[in-house]
Amino acid sequence: MTRRAPADVATLVTRARTGDPRAVARLISLVEDASPLLREVSAGLVDHAGHAQVVGVTGAPGVGKSTSTSALVSGLRRADKRVGVLAVDPSSPFSGGALLGDRVRMQEHALDPGVYIRSMATRGHLGGLAWSSPQAIRVLDAAGCDVVLVETVGVGQSEVDVAGLADTTLVLLAPGMGDGIQVAKAGILEVGDIYVINKADRDGAAHVARDLRAMLALAKDEDGAWQHPIIKTVAVKGEGVEDLVAALDEHREWMEASGELQKRRLRRARDEIEAIAVTALRDRFGSLSGHADLDSLAAQIVEGGTDPYRAADTLLDTL
Amino acid sequence: MTRRAPADVATLVTRARTGDPRAVARLISLVEDASPLLREVSAGLVDHAGHAQVVGVTGAPGVGKSTSTSALVSGLRRADKRVGVLAVDPSSPFSGGALLGDRVRMQEHALDPGVYIRSMATRGHLGGLAWSSPQAIRVLDAAGCDVVLVETVGVGQSEVDVAGLADTTLVLLAPGMGDGIQVAKAGILEVGDIYVINKADRDGAAHVARDLRAMLALAKDEDGAWQHPIIKTVAVKGEGVEDLVAALDEHREWMEASGELQKRRLRRARDEIEAIAVTALRDRFGSLSGHADLDSLAAQIVEGGTDPYRAADTLLDTL
Repeated sequence: MTRRAPADVATLVTRARTGDPRAVARLISLVEDASPLLREVSAGLVDHAGHAQVVGVTGAPGVGKSTSTSALVSGLRRADKRVGVLAVDPSSPFSGGALLGDRVRMQEHALDPGVYIRSMATRGHLGGLAWSSPQAIRVLDAAGCDVVLVETVGVGQSEVDVAGLADTTLVLLAPGMGDGIQVAKAGILEVGDIYVINKADRDGAAHVARDLRAMLALAKDEDGAWQHPIIKTVAVKGEGVEDLVAALDEHREWMEASGELQKRRLRRARDEIEAIAVTALRDRFGSLSGHADLDSLAAQIVEGGTDPYRAADTLLDTL
Repeated sequence: MTRRAPADVATLVTRARTGDPRAVARLISLVEDASPLLREVSAGLVDHAGHAQVVGVTGAPGVGKSTSTSALVSGLRRADKRVGVLAVDPSSPFSGGALLGDRVRMQEHALDPGVYIRSMATRGHLGGLAWSSPQAIRVLDAAGCDVVLVETVGVGQSEVDVAGLADTTLVLLAPGMGDGIQVAKAGILEVGDIYVINKADRDGAAHVARDLRAMLALAKDEDGAWQHPIIKTVAVKGEGVEDLVAALDEHREWMEASGELQKRRLRRARDEIEAIAVTALRDRFGSLSGHADLDSLAAQIVEGGTDPYRAADTLLDTL
């Protein structure tokens, strides 16, 4: 396979902006593979992103995340919005790849030209989300998506990261997934802008809503603060989805009016610059050699010759 | 309150090594608070750590993590081992602090001079574990603990981090916590050295064991590789705990004989140096000012004037 010439990136961006799904897919692949063209893709997207509302979808396994995402796509399409879906899959060495069984639920949207669906593997690299996902989101944004849904497959560290990528974060809960304390323990409550109680036709939905309201009441409300809505859905039947679409619009409007959108985007941009700079520095650490390289310093720590703070000083001095 | 003189650290280390629990507690506090004395504590521990087997205890909420930890402490004490317990609590803004309800189970050990128990808050800082926990583990190690158990309260990113801190990682499962796919999705399977099926007297325990064996069979085994044991326990009754203690010993012996212990400790030392160096660099990023500071660069990205890669270059050039 021949490496594509740099000029292709500009062409791909132009084609992606006219809605060519293959160009969109190719740009995301360049980003995901950390291709040498990644920098060029990033530069090419500068003038074409910033329109989409980025919506993180998070929740424990079993709450119906992928069914809810699929139902939400249908709801957004009925509201005439173009939708991108980025499903982030922490790969597992045991499965030999991403666990994509649930993804079949998305297939009803596969032929809709107003929907881009993309699975992205983080390839076992836990920090992978930090630098590849923002760029993939920008690709979907530049391609004209009004809403980009970012969903994790599975649980773990990526959940909170996803919230960090989003303008609006949906936290999904469901009855029967553990008591209130366990919900709070999961650490995902504090990242939510909109709470969705899925499977709301089951016993215990009212109980979950009550626990949730009690926990939200503990958070201090400032004047003009966003009032976190609690939306009940039965995603598998499409029930409550219109309410959810409306809540997304309301949150977007509040974000713009309050200045929170700008604030969050600035914070995200800061995080992204930092992540890229830190990755570059780690690469430099890794390429050092001699007595001040990471392996020698680590060996000195294990043998008791130095401590990590002195070792870090040595490393930074060498840089 | 007057700041303690630097000389105190050496005294505290000496007192901690004789088993003074207040000195141990004070040293961990210095570490946890990222006190100005942190570097000195780190340097003071260099010659006194490396003896303890660090055991990570991980698993989804509801599997009985704290009950299992408490039962394991009892088992280790019967085997005449000194035990440190570090319970890491991702704080929540909703609860105003750590959710320590479960900790009452540990109180039966509170008066045992051979057991140190310490809760550590990560204070909402997700990366907090990376630099404070290794030092806290070293304090317990230097204080003469044969085994240091590191347990997270709750789920999230910290789970995988805890595995990264440990010589030996226990992954706890229980019947009724979701089907096999959900177990695999949880992303904690691949970090386990020893699997524990707790609540093994309940329906479904055999099913969980079968699913787990099937998933473990998918992983490639090299010659001399560790054969992951699956231990069944009923922690609340203390059943199976002796088997677990024996499995910990076997893993420690295998780790030493195979060279894996050295390998993991080197990797941990590398990670620790990197985490400290990266934190120092982030502090430098944060203290920059002028047109190349993080805030200006972030604003340029949000406004479309630059892209994150160029911004990161500018940042690194300024450093």
